[in-house]
Amino acid sequence: MAFELYYWPGLQGRGEFVRLALEEAGADYVDVARRHDGMVAMNRLLEGDGANRPPYAPPFLKDGDVLVGQTAAILLYLGRKLDLAPRDEQGQLWTHQIQLTIADLVAEAHDCHHPIASSLYYEDQKTEAKRRSADFRDSRIPKYLAWFETVLARNPHGTEHLVGDAITYADLSLFQAVDGLNYAFPIAMARLLSEAPAVAALHTQVAHRPRIAAYLASERRQPYNEQGIFRHYPELDA
Amino acid sequence: MAFELYYWPGLQGRGEFVRLALEEAGADYVDVARRHDGMVAMNRLLEGDGANRPPYAPPFLKDGDVLVGQTAAILLYLGRKLDLAPRDEQGQLWTHQIQLTIADLVAEAHDCHHPIASSLYYEDQKTEAKRRSADFRDSRIPKYLAWFETVLARNPHGTEHLVGDAITYADLSLFQAVDGLNYAFPIAMARLLSEAPAVAALHTQVAHRPRIAAYLASERRQPYNEQGIFRHYPELDA
Repeated sequence: MAFELYYWPGLQGRGEFVRLALEEAGADYVDVARRHDGMVAMNRLLEGDGANRPPYAPPFLKDGDVLVGQTAAILLYLGRKLDLAPRDEQGQLWTHQIQLTIADLVAEAHDCHHPIASSLYYEDQKTEAKRRSADFRDSRIPKYLAWFETVLARNPHGTEHLVGDAITYADLSLFQAVDGLNYAFPIAMARLLSEAPAVAALHTQVAHRPRIAAYLASERRQPYNEQGIFRHYPELDA
Repeated sequence: MAFELYYWPGLQGRGEFVRLALEEAGADYVDVARRHDGMVAMNRLLEGDGANRPPYAPPFLKDGDVLVGQTAAILLYLGRKLDLAPRDEQGQLWTHQIQLTIADLVAEAHDCHHPIASSLYYEDQKTEAKRRSADFRDSRIPKYLAWFETVLARNPHGTEHLVGDAITYADLSLFQAVDGLNYAFPIAMARLLSEAPAVAALHTQVAHRPRIAAYLASERRQPYNEQGIFRHYPELDA
């Protein structure tokens, strides 16, 4: 039975981290809310009383009787199921720890354009967004990139992967985080990635994996836009 | 061998979610950085080249050869080890999903007083903090509390616990989140908790568990202050 992914249509958002895992594994899945009437099905699980264990928000994944929300928890589940994480418990925990750190970075990237409230328009918090983005570019992105460089450098199996000698969902998620930051902050990232060569190489290498390359070239990959987590507002970049 | 918890001394912070799990289980642990020279040991693991799998930031936990960072990942590990999560995989995943949602709430609570940058003083972002806090009180806390109420209401074992019929780390973490919000936003929380009776009852009930009550009354429980995640600035409450 196909996996069912539920996420807002029209943007990559956090759903993209799940899509990349499903695509890399060649898994059979349905992107439910992008289908006709798919939003009805999504809202029934979110707001209806159909689920004993209702997710707080999209994305969430249905796999037969299993319903799981929270991006990192979905990937913890899929990592085991799709062989996108090490088999040993410590390796799984380390992969998950990296994922949670990527999630922190992604949340900060979102708050760059919405530092006051998600419910307000960008234009209503543009001044604050400029202040927050300056700190994000100057302090936060470099700190995260330096940590990812260290993780890659200390991997006993080499710098190609974050964990072990094979692809994990953490590699895919780091690809997406870097890709999104490149879209949102092209000037800053060109500068910052030059000091994080292993991260830059990982981004390139993941983009060229056969299934990921095919996905990125397909219509299943939605373009970046100013609805998602990563938004390109030139005034926030430098 | 005792667990070693590493977290900034002088504040509860994210370390407190780990402490509550260790305390409830009656586990033998050392709060390393609160000891003499403990900061040296913490910085060696954070910044030195001693660890193949270095944590990004405190808190992190050392259990023999295992080193794990990220609060939710630490609790995933401890949940299994200390019997603070269900034994079945789906139950563990659901507990973790709730924990990740609590973590999102906690991150938003932090950003109420630091909406622009953690590296700046509160006084330098006070205007923005007021705007963000108003949205947090009016929209965000109610949305989270409503979800926790739903989770408690739909637990087939009753509303005493978030998951199953026994205490889990998710219950302990929800206690801490509510407790911190009560400290930071006493006016708003008095109003909001009156509409979330099951959450309010869980908070009270956890506080009265014998080991938690003993912990809260001990010197091991550090008082709230304006260094932590939850800060009481009267101008942010209403």
